[in-house]
Amino acid sequence: MAAIPEAACPLCREDGGQLIARHDKFRLIRATGSDAADCPGFYRVVWNAHVAEFSDLAEADQLLCLRAVSAVERVLRDCLQPAKVNLAALGNMVPHLHWHVIARHDWDSRWPAPIWAAPQRAAAEARLAALRERLPACDAAIAALVF
Amino acid sequence: MAAIPEAACPLCREDGGQLIARHDKFRLIRATGSDAADCPGFYRVVWNAHVAEFSDLAEADQLLCLRAVSAVERVLRDCLQPAKVNLAALGNMVPHLHWHVIARHDWDSRWPAPIWAAPQRAAAEARLAALRERLPACDAAIAALVF
Repeated sequence: MAAIPEAACPLCREDGGQLIARHDKFRLIRATGSDAADCPGFYRVVWNAHVAEFSDLAEADQLLCLRAVSAVERVLRDCLQPAKVNLAALGNMVPHLHWHVIARHDWDSRWPAPIWAAPQRAAAEARLAALRERLPACDAAIAALVF
Repeated sequence: MAAIPEAACPLCREDGGQLIARHDKFRLIRATGSDAADCPGFYRVVWNAHVAEFSDLAEADQLLCLRAVSAVERVLRDCLQPAKVNLAALGNMVPHLHWHVIARHDWDSRWPAPIWAAPQRAAAEARLAALRERLPACDAAIAALVF
């Protein structure tokens, strides 16, 4: 397994985006910067402990982690009406468990490809701006989640 | 949410790859063809019912589904010694819940990018061939999983 020391791990040193809620074992953040430019409804569940793989967690922690992923997904569905939600735990660059929870729309520049593929069309700026206006309500609903 | 009729859904009509094990609520398959050309240790947990989003499942089913994902991940770690396992539930093209469980190696042509990004280097044919030789043992270990 990939191993980087905790001292060198960006998710041990920083929240990893806009902090929405901090819980005992994980935090909920909204992706910022270039990561979210094309898909602004892009959140992450970041496990607080420096663990690389989902299967490193005890089953109770796996359940808690996936409860958080599922709850964030539900909020995105309610607040942002995506065509699809994409879930992923990759961690090739930063092997510290974090789940991407991404609201995808059928007008986004990479749809229907994964967000890591090349863009297929220009960004729909007016639609992106309208979507960004709904993020504060989405953030608030995620901040209010109880686990 | 994206909705396609079950009659038109490829994962309602076919297994979706090489069938490794069929369980009551899900099946375990190994990806074949171009999907697995660069990353042969590529398995999927396919939910049998035509459900689009992970958060559509009741919590008991979410737990069962993630137990399967985690168990497959464990087998991949044991049998294929990946640098990292990548997990993803996307479904933009086929909105029928399926989890990708992919063994990534630091020599694969897209590493450290997600498998959906463009290749960064030529395929390492000798290493790929050696990895493929280990798939039957990996398949057998996955087939033997009990849920």
